[in-house]
Amino acid sequence: MFAKYGAQYPAKDLQENMRAVDLIFAKRQSQTLAEGDIRRFITDYARGTLPDYQMSAFLMAVYFKGLNADELAALTDAMMHSGEIFDLRKIPGVKADKHSTGGVGDKVSLILAPLAAACGLRVPMVSGRGLGHTGGTLDKLESIPGFNVNLTPAQFRKQLAKLGVAMIGQTDRFVPADKKMYALRDVTATVESIPLIAASIMSKKLAEGCDALVLDIKVGSGAFMTDRRRAEELARTMIGIGQKMGRKVSALLTDMNQPTGRAIGNASEVIEAIECLKGTWPSDLRQITFALTARMLTLANIAKTRSAAEALMQQALDSGAALEIFRKMIQAQSGDPNVIDHPEKLKLAPKEAVITAPHAGWLSTIQTRQIGIAAAILGAGRQTKEDKIDPSVALTMEARLGDKIEKNQPLIRARYRKESAWREAEPLLKKALTLTEQKTIPPRLLLGEIN
Amino acid sequence: MFAKYGAQYPAKDLQENMRAVDLIFAKRQSQTLAEGDIRRFITDYARGTLPDYQMSAFLMAVYFKGLNADELAALTDAMMHSGEIFDLRKIPGVKADKHSTGGVGDKVSLILAPLAAACGLRVPMVSGRGLGHTGGTLDKLESIPGFNVNLTPAQFRKQLAKLGVAMIGQTDRFVPADKKMYALRDVTATVESIPLIAASIMSKKLAEGCDALVLDIKVGSGAFMTDRRRAEELARTMIGIGQKMGRKVSALLTDMNQPTGRAIGNASEVIEAIECLKGTWPSDLRQITFALTARMLTLANIAKTRSAAEALMQQALDSGAALEIFRKMIQAQSGDPNVIDHPEKLKLAPKEAVITAPHAGWLSTIQTRQIGIAAAILGAGRQTKEDKIDPSVALTMEARLGDKIEKNQPLIRARYRKESAWREAEPLLKKALTLTEQKTIPPRLLLGEIN
Repeated sequence: MFAKYGAQYPAKDLQENMRAVDLIFAKRQSQTLAEGDIRRFITDYARGTLPDYQMSAFLMAVYFKGLNADELAALTDAMMHSGEIFDLRKIPGVKADKHSTGGVGDKVSLILAPLAAACGLRVPMVSGRGLGHTGGTLDKLESIPGFNVNLTPAQFRKQLAKLGVAMIGQTDRFVPADKKMYALRDVTATVESIPLIAASIMSKKLAEGCDALVLDIKVGSGAFMTDRRRAEELARTMIGIGQKMGRKVSALLTDMNQPTGRAIGNASEVIEAIECLKGTWPSDLRQITFALTARMLTLANIAKTRSAAEALMQQALDSGAALEIFRKMIQAQSGDPNVIDHPEKLKLAPKEAVITAPHAGWLSTIQTRQIGIAAAILGAGRQTKEDKIDPSVALTMEARLGDKIEKNQPLIRARYRKESAWREAEPLLKKALTLTEQKTIPPRLLLGEIN
Repeated sequence: MFAKYGAQYPAKDLQENMRAVDLIFAKRQSQTLAEGDIRRFITDYARGTLPDYQMSAFLMAVYFKGLNADELAALTDAMMHSGEIFDLRKIPGVKADKHSTGGVGDKVSLILAPLAAACGLRVPMVSGRGLGHTGGTLDKLESIPGFNVNLTPAQFRKQLAKLGVAMIGQTDRFVPADKKMYALRDVTATVESIPLIAASIMSKKLAEGCDALVLDIKVGSGAFMTDRRRAEELARTMIGIGQKMGRKVSALLTDMNQPTGRAIGNASEVIEAIECLKGTWPSDLRQITFALTARMLTLANIAKTRSAAEALMQQALDSGAALEIFRKMIQAQSGDPNVIDHPEKLKLAPKEAVITAPHAGWLSTIQTRQIGIAAAILGAGRQTKEDKIDPSVALTMEARLGDKIEKNQPLIRARYRKESAWREAEPLLKKALTLTEQKTIPPRLLLGEIN
């Protein structure tokens, strides 16, 4: 160790068993890291022999210097293999999943998973919880009384084989490297790195054992990426990882300049999802769910064309098969299946309020992130990981971008429990909507597909 | 805390009490940090409430994004105030010190400190230990039997007032933030950052309580900086910190393409230093010691001009005053003062070997770093912080750059203890010297002065 001021670490001269500090140094200097070195670094970190402070320096170096395709594949693979991997090879059929980068009111998974299963796919879905302005699929599912998101791998496999779908959360043994790295990134300002985001998502999705993966990359005021160029870069990066690892991956870029559908809040989003499965859709929610599910079906070769996929999906909905699978999944995961026939069992919070238009105009912008934050403040989400969710809190969007609005017309309806929270959320909601005198053109929902 | 993928931390919107993660984020984004935020970050780190992993992410962000003059002054000041500061205001006279960025055979401090004191300066010198290819003043002093580098602040002040010089090591309470940060940088590949190097040096030198500081910035094959441009940048950065903090700082750029003087190794360097104080100098060692001491004297206004300083120094040497102060300092710090009159009391290692010229030629390059590493392998230095020094190990340079060399002429003489170490060091030494057929021009020693 020959280091004092300005030392040049002999990184290049070292044998392949690079020390952690030399690996950090090499990345800092834009050198290419060897697969074995990356693997050891991640493995050591996951098992606790490499300290947080070296990982955080590495993460910051990656933030600035990036990772090439080989390095990224090695990182993702090492993360993926840091824990338990679902081996689904014995389950017949194509295993496919969808991942969204997160948004407001995004309950697509709740509809897509049973719908795709009804069309013949196996959907092994491992989801996350909401944090910040975004909701999480697990929180939504848990608003169904009794619903259990913690299945053992054996239970998970069994249900997947039987029903074609299972929706669960991560266990401590599922991609533990990502869990640790994610927590560390969160407190070291290394979250916003495209390769790190891509490796985090892909390590989990590939550990699920799925053969095909469709990514919903959201762009806009309610997305983590407001910039389309960066969203495309993320999509391409994740697809690149998938290719390196022999999986079929496709990405849709979708607009998140307004909440998806009408409902925001856990129970209310489940209610909306059930309505969709019964045939009553907000048009944006139908459009995005169909686009993503269709891509899963064509990627898995269950449908040859988009229109064949469309026909399959319509049949699964019209026949009630998709709804039935959702019901059975709820039952299989200890939830109350009566919510399907009686969505009113999903209780909404007692207090009601309405945000109305202060003047007439056209709804021209929605600060969707602020709406997500307001929902979280009311209890629908978490401001810190320790916060408890109130599933009954709900916001309902009564208008969409481009709508002509009359004075005093309701724009957002709220269901909440605590007045103090409402006093904090109300001004955020009011500020989040802009009415203009001139008509504005609403954004397109489907921005593009990247393969 | 609204962070998931690609979150934009609301760093700018935050009140002045920025959270640690927001401070890291702000630096990563090239935002300017407020003095109070930097101070809190450093203070919290020094007292252990800010974890290593946040500091290492910050350090890596600083590596890439740098610090402006205000941020750097705030950082240095916060580090300096993290522990005990020597308050020397009650001691009359100008307190001045010298700091070298480190090299091979650099025993200048041993001569300069008593010499400067004999010329009327107060020299409160806090030094470090050798690491890697460089030696450290503390290790050299400790080769004097009994020499104690651990004085209490009261002892330090008392000796400084009485003798004009005290040479000690850092206590745990002396700039603890730097100690912790330095150890962390060493294992996170964040050593080679000019602002961090500058803050590390300056926080310690300013905590010594000196009014004037001369920096010896070494450039060349045995220096931490091989690139002159970076060395100049470091000099300017440190001078900038000094200015912001109201101290007089000047820097000399000096050549480190060959060892300074002839001796390398702790006891042998003390012997050489004693010889110099008695009037027998290797010419390069005299040149550099005089240049640095003179700059201290002119900076402190003890001498108006370089030639007046020269006269003062010559008198302090000729009169024996400088040597006498060195003797008294050794005595005051529990060392055996008889080494002055009997340098042979400083024992050299029993085994001897010589590296000779394989053919005639001109000595054109010396890989000085490799010579330092060979000396460390023999026991003169540390390869890790835990290694023990063998003070008796010595290398003597028998030739200098530009010398005409005959075949079989001795180039380096070695004194060592372990054959196994010699077998490792010998090839390094042989490879470190290049003899060419054509005459080469030796480098200039004094490359420039930066004020």
